[in-house]
This record gives sequence, C-alpha cells and structure tokens, in this order.
Amino acid sequence: MTATSWTRETLDRIQEIMDASLRTAGTVQRSFFGKEERRLDAQAFLRTWNGIYMCAAATQGSGPWPHLAGIKLEFDAEGELSMLLYQGGAREADLRANPRTVLQKQDDDGTVLTVYARAEVPDDEPVIDRRGRAHIQVRLVPVRIYAMGPYVSGPLSRPDRAGNGRA
Amino acid sequence: MTATSWTRETLDRIQEIMDASLRTAGTVQRSFFGKEERRLDAQAFLRTWNGIYMCAAATQGSGPWPHLAGIKLEFDAEGELSMLLYQGGAREADLRANPRTVLQKQDDDGTVLTVYARAEVPDDEPVIDRRGRAHIQVRLVPVRIYAMGPYVSGPLSRPDRAGNGRA
Repeated sequence: MTATSWTRETLDRIQEIMDASLRTAGTVQRSFFGKEERRLDAQAFLRTWNGIYMCAAATQGSGPWPHLAGIKLEFDAEGELSMLLYQGGAREADLRANPRTVLQKQDDDGTVLTVYARAEVPDDEPVIDRRGRAHIQVRLVPVRIYAMGPYVSGPLSRPDRAGNGRA
Repeated sequence: MTATSWTRETLDRIQEIMDASLRTAGTVQRSFFGKEERRLDAQAFLRTWNGIYMCAAATQGSGPWPHLAGIKLEFDAEGELSMLLYQGGAREADLRANPRTVLQKQDDDGTVLTVYARAEVPDDEPVIDRRGRAHIQVRLVPVRIYAMGPYVSGPLSRPDRAGNGRA
C-alpha cells in the first residue's frame, strides 16, 4: 500500500540520511544534487518517490555487465522499501552475491531521486504468481539518498509545478 | 538534436538487436519483455526513447557499489547514442575501467526501455561548461535492447494511448 504520510521520527531518520549523503558527495555529484533551489526535504522526497510508479533498480553482476530492472517500489509507512524479487533472474543472483542496489525514480520535469540501499534477502519460501513466476519479498535498507526536484528555470521548467513536492 | 526519423537501414539494424536480445533473454526477462501485446518495433522504440527526457545510466563500480546516474541521452539520426561524461565523477572512473553501461528510460504508463551498451571513451580534451565542470562526449554502441510498451489492460492502462508508439 502506498504511504502518503510519515511520523516525525521516520522523517528525521530519512532527512539525516539525505543530509549525510550530500555532505559526503563527490564534486560532480554535489554539483547536481546540491542545488539549493531544487533540494527536497524528507517529506517531499518520500511523497515524490511514491508519486512515481516506475523505479530503475541497478545491481552489480558477477559478470562484467551491471544489471538494470524496471520495477514498482514504494516507501511504506515506516519509511522502508520492500522489493519483489523474481527467482531465477539476474537480479536475484546479483543480490544474493552482493546485496547492494541503487534505485532511481525520475520525472521529465527534472526530478531525480536516487537511493543506495542494502537488500536483506530472506530464506522464505517463494510465492507463485498467476504467470507461474516464483518471487520473494526483499527488504531494502536505504544507505544514501540524493534528491533533486523539478527544474526551476530554463526551457523545461514548469512554473505551475513550483514548490518542493507534488502532494 | 533529437532525431524523429531514421533510415530503413538504421531501423533494420536496431530491430536485429531487439530480436536477438529477446531470443537470448533469460526466462524472467522474457516473461516481461516478451509480451506480444506490448512489444515495440524499432521505430516505436526509437521514437518512444527520444520522447522521454530522463535516462537512468548504470555502471559497475570498482568498489562494491553499482552506480546510477540520471542523464539526458537520445538516439541521433544514425541510431547512435552520445553521452556527456563529467570528468572526475564516478561514472567516468567506472567507464574507463569497464566500458559496459546499462541505460533505461521508462514511463508510468508501463513503458520500459533498456539498452545494454559499450562506451567508447575518447582521449579528447574536455569541454568546460558554464558551471566550471569539465566533460567529454562518449559514444555508446548498443549491444542488447529490450523494449516494452504501455500497459494494455489493468488499472494503469490508458486506452487513449494504445498503439505501439507515441509519435
């Protein structure tokens, strides 16, 4: 279920990750995500994230290729992420060998939301969906978060969407 | 400049990559990208790709984390991709060590477009942009392409967008 509000405690925890991420960002990364006029606070970040359906999820392959999947992924009321993982796919093999994943949601208004997270892959029995695919639910713990809101100037900015959120 | 039409030769080349990619896909991947009713042909793929602004670009880090950037990236009239690469960032270091990158564009209507590509990083002198960041242009050669059009049924389908393209 899509959460649309969070406790002060959850917001503070997410905000701390966002602030620490920006503090330790490299120069190039800070030149993008550090723009004052486009920064999002924890609440705007969470609402914007859950307001976008598709998420790109990158994992490190054991071979020479990284992998990238298009999935559905939302923050729950506790500010955690639960990812559906199909058994037998590249993403499952990747995460069992290396639990680090990077997630990104974006909007053509310039919004870019990036979450570095660790996956906790359980030993649960898989569930079979109606297409016959086996899957398990994997908990993701955010480690770093970078968030950038819509363009505020230039040809792609949309003045009607100004403000740090889309709630 | 955004291309909106391509020669028969370019379309045939892209179509061959798309067909070969699906033929050699794993079971989980084929269960997503192989849906007959949502397949895109080369022209619909290229137009849809160029009609979406933001692209997620994954690279394999030399450390334990994959990297994921939100960038602008379009096919030119020759059906090739030219990526702007900032010097000193994680993506530059990654691609110089391992030129493999996975790109994804997506839309909340269910569209998912994924391109596995090899980067050809030149020894050119960098260009300095107005924020003082140095960058070079990197050519990307598509190796595998997976494309899935909008939902055609279910709560997120949009009947007004039916058809395999958004041209």
